Amino acid sequence: MKIVLAEKLTAHNDEIARSNRQHLDSAHVLALNFIGSPGTGKTSLLERTLHTRSPHQRMGVIEGDLFTARDAERIASHGIPVVQINTRGACHLDAAMVSRALSGIDLATVDLLLIENVGNLVCPAGCDLGEHVRVTVLSVTEGSDKPAKYPLVFCRSDAVVLTKLDLLDHTDFDLDAAVHDIHALNPDCEVFLTSARTGQGMERWSQWLSGLLR
Amino acid sequence: MKIVLAEKLTAHNDEIARSNRQHLDSAHVLALNFIGSPGTGKTSLLERTLHTRSPHQRMGVIEGDLFTARDAERIASHGIPVVQINTRGACHLDAAMVSRALSGIDLATVDLLLIENVGNLVCPAGCDLGEHVRVTVLSVTEGSDKPAKYPLVFCRSDAVVLTKLDLLDHTDFDLDAAVHDIHALNPDCEVFLTSARTGQGMERWSQWLSGLLR
Repeated sequence: MKIVLAEKLTAHNDEIARSNRQHLDSAHVLALNFIGSPGTGKTSLLERTLHTRSPHQRMGVIEGDLFTARDAERIASHGIPVVQINTRGACHLDAAMVSRALSGIDLATVDLLLIENVGNLVCPAGCDLGEHVRVTVLSVTEGSDKPAKYPLVFCRSDAVVLTKLDLLDHTDFDLDAAVHDIHALNPDCEVFLTSARTGQGMERWSQWLSGLLR
Repeated sequence: MKIVLAEKLTAHNDEIARSNRQHLDSAHVLALNFIGSPGTGKTSLLERTLHTRSPHQRMGVIEGDLFTARDAERIASHGIPVVQINTRGACHLDAAMVSRALSGIDLATVDLLLIENVGNLVCPAGCDLGEHVRVTVLSVTEGSDKPAKYPLVFCRSDAVVLTKLDLLDHTDFDLDAAVHDIHALNPDCEVFLTSARTGQGMERWSQWLSGLLR
């Protein structure tokens, strides 16, 4: 019974996710779903991305959080359209939440929609929001064993952004091992080495985003 | 319907959790449930705790992970009884998993049982394992906004261990704000400032653990 219910719920979510994707496609908007633990630096990566974007890249943001609007306030200060979803305790965004958020954004003014999921490396991996591209964010302060320990999200991502590279020398993070483990799980996954503080790697990341739009 | 099912599942878990606690009580074992994000330093904290324990403190460990046994291998190298639970993708431990793990430990040889939950700051907060004491682990590299953004787990903890204090000067972490926010949510919560790398704060932490046993 439990398994049947789980399948039904997933099927219902996938249906709404497909509808979200069609809605985004017809508005010529490309959506990215950013997944990572609390404090991995998702919002800082988004802020840097907004800061270094070229003028012709029109971006919008959906912020997922359990309760507060702190991240949305940070994004709004950049003059970007942003909608906050408060899940009220639910551990990840789902397609229905994103569907409601989409109605709060004028998609005609957006080319690239960045969706920041709730801070959680586990549960968001199994839930399609209707995005086109999935990005997993992992900071070097979390340890290089994380791809092996949390394989699902790394298997299902188009890119992994490693963050806080400015702290690398203060950690035991094994960069080669982490990149090796990511590619063992997902050979086609792009890996970016970045620091939102120093700007390291942001040029290559921004170029990759631009390439997605072409 | 969904809500009814959730209540039923929780009630069933709570029943097994009560049974776990009775089982532990009758064996004079005190159990702690360690909750925190992936890479927050839970295993390193446990290793330091084992390293600095006094000889009369007999400890055992249950390790929760999605797939690998890496953390259990780290703990086993300290010559401590350890049982690995692999949740195979489930985002937190539950009481039934812990019940099965308990049958793999000779409780007569253990005074203090340290249970490391799956790396996740959200979902474990709502699930009683039958522990006596709940400890939330948060690293300073995750940011001082986390108590406000993930309040549930901080509300329901007996102690918060802040980790990676050796990296504090390299971060924007506001120690006063974090401690203030923790105590605003949970006035009676103990807060420990630690570094597994330098040993900072481990003496006070070990003394607190000893006090629990008395």
